Amino acid sequence: MPTSEFTLIYRYFSALGRGDAVDLSVGDDCAILRLGEGERLATSVDTLVAGVHFLEDTFPEDIGFRAVSVAASDLAAMGAQPLWLTLAITLPEADERWLSRFTSGLDAALEAYKISLVGGDTTSGQLRVLSAQVQGSVPVGEALRRDGAQVGDLIYVSGTLGDSRAGLELLQNPQSHAQQADYLLQRFLRPSPRIDLGMALRGIATAAIDISDGLLADLGHLLRRSGVAGQIELESLPRSTALHSFCDAAQAMRWAATGGEDFELCFTCPESRKSDIEAISAQLGLRLSAIGRVSVGSELEVKSQGQSWLNPHSAGFEHFGAQQ
Amino acid sequence: MPTSEFTLIYRYFSALGRGDAVDLSVGDDCAILRLGEGERLATSVDTLVAGVHFLEDTFPEDIGFRAVSVAASDLAAMGAQPLWLTLAITLPEADERWLSRFTSGLDAALEAYKISLVGGDTTSGQLRVLSAQVQGSVPVGEALRRDGAQVGDLIYVSGTLGDSRAGLELLQNPQSHAQQADYLLQRFLRPSPRIDLGMALRGIATAAIDISDGLLADLGHLLRRSGVAGQIELESLPRSTALHSFCDAAQAMRWAATGGEDFELCFTCPESRKSDIEAISAQLGLRLSAIGRVSVGSELEVKSQGQSWLNPHSAGFEHFGAQQ
Repeated sequence: MPTSEFTLIYRYFSALGRGDAVDLSVGDDCAILRLGEGERLATSVDTLVAGVHFLEDTFPEDIGFRAVSVAASDLAAMGAQPLWLTLAITLPEADERWLSRFTSGLDAALEAYKISLVGGDTTSGQLRVLSAQVQGSVPVGEALRRDGAQVGDLIYVSGTLGDSRAGLELLQNPQSHAQQADYLLQRFLRPSPRIDLGMALRGIATAAIDISDGLLADLGHLLRRSGVAGQIELESLPRSTALHSFCDAAQAMRWAATGGEDFELCFTCPESRKSDIEAISAQLGLRLSAIGRVSVGSELEVKSQGQSWLNPHSAGFEHFGAQQ
Repeated sequence: MPTSEFTLIYRYFSALGRGDAVDLSVGDDCAILRLGEGERLATSVDTLVAGVHFLEDTFPEDIGFRAVSVAASDLAAMGAQPLWLTLAITLPEADERWLSRFTSGLDAALEAYKISLVGGDTTSGQLRVLSAQVQGSVPVGEALRRDGAQVGDLIYVSGTLGDSRAGLELLQNPQSHAQQADYLLQRFLRPSPRIDLGMALRGIATAAIDISDGLLADLGHLLRRSGVAGQIELESLPRSTALHSFCDAAQAMRWAATGGEDFELCFTCPESRKSDIEAISAQLGLRLSAIGRVSVGSELEVKSQGQSWLNPHSAGFEHFGAQQ
């Protein structure tokens, strides 16, 4: 791109680099950042590709907000305090109107999660690609890893599941209707990474993961990494009234189990910490639902009304509902 | 992409996550990394887009090597010790042969610079886009910023300039010839970030930048950020015999001044540190050439055989050589 376009982009992004833990931000070869003693750095990168992770006609504000939120959700899943973001962005052209709107959504998310934009790279290419890298801090030994689930632990999820999938459906089929369409759309476009929950679960949860691929897939990852099995009850999956007003019960259940991109947390903890979980739920005003239990073995078993599926990524579960 | 392709990619990348400063690497929501007391974290991201930053038919090994090298060069320019890499990669398809070759080049660079791959995100999209984010450490207050150049400082560059631009020319015009074609090609395809030099310059250089856009543009950035002017002598720009065997003297000079992507360091230091610079040059076996001096004002003045240009990004200098 010509220098003038870089200047334009620099102008938009350099304003977002404020923050207490920032020595040097956008505009040098690297950002220089601070981290206290006894802290570990948590880092994660997520890429959004136009036409794959967002529709070409998505509002730029929503793309900006979502790019930060999706990456911050990985920090939440580690129990980390968000600190910094770098953004690698590839664009067909430096469209000032698009950039201004994109930056506004980006800034709203940075404000919400108290993250500083500390650097990036802007390149031209015939496809919109955004890579958001977040970094945060977590005290030594307190990160919520995927591999700590213990036999006998309860399995929890936060919030409600399947809403984001319904929101995507609304976007893809503008002729479809829902009583609470805006709520479902926002659940897809402006996900809420569970940052406060992740930090509250330090020292309580034995393992955690954020739900990006769908509950069954992500819980499967967690159990596999922990070397254990698990059972969950489909009926105990938390579903919103908005979801139920949009589709039939079987569809709602399928989306809650496999829909993905809810960016809620799925975590495990000993039954003895049940009261701690209830206290956290009350403090954050966030629903936390026990949906099953960790057991000996290596399979995820899904139960519903006398039926049961093993490792439900397989073809069997995809016909759930059609069989009912 | 189907899960099987993610598994394939995980298999390639998870092997590269070794390293002493790594608590938890590829395979969780975030990597968890360590940094000592009194250290600052330096971080930078660089994106390579197919057809823009590399030709579509570039060997995958070279793309992998170059992606790490270009990003590591920003750490060098800060005087930082490289530690970790995350890689966001968008590919039209998960081609195992391409990935295997790409990983081999990536690994060679990680080995060379002692960097651990600690995470990433792989997405599908109809354009190859690679975003490499590097992180390193630098003691508090010792980072080589762009904004520290002082009036009277000498201006230095490392190595030789213009080789990379000649290498690109060889790639784009396969019918062209050079006596040392392989050297020039390697200078473009496998740049050498000046990591050891950057660390050696801590406490000696007052400002530094790596040469990615071309010496005149990058030195211009450094002077502007420092609020000073500078004069350089074109004849003092270090050029290789390989470059001179490939093109005429005026072309060699133009490429040395503006060619870009040499990933050498340009830095400033007080004249009193001249003997330190000579000692570093001898120790590293790396040519370090004084090319000019920092002065009062805000313009970069380029001199050659009685001619002089101000702010040579302007049209005037582009005809250099043609005017001779």
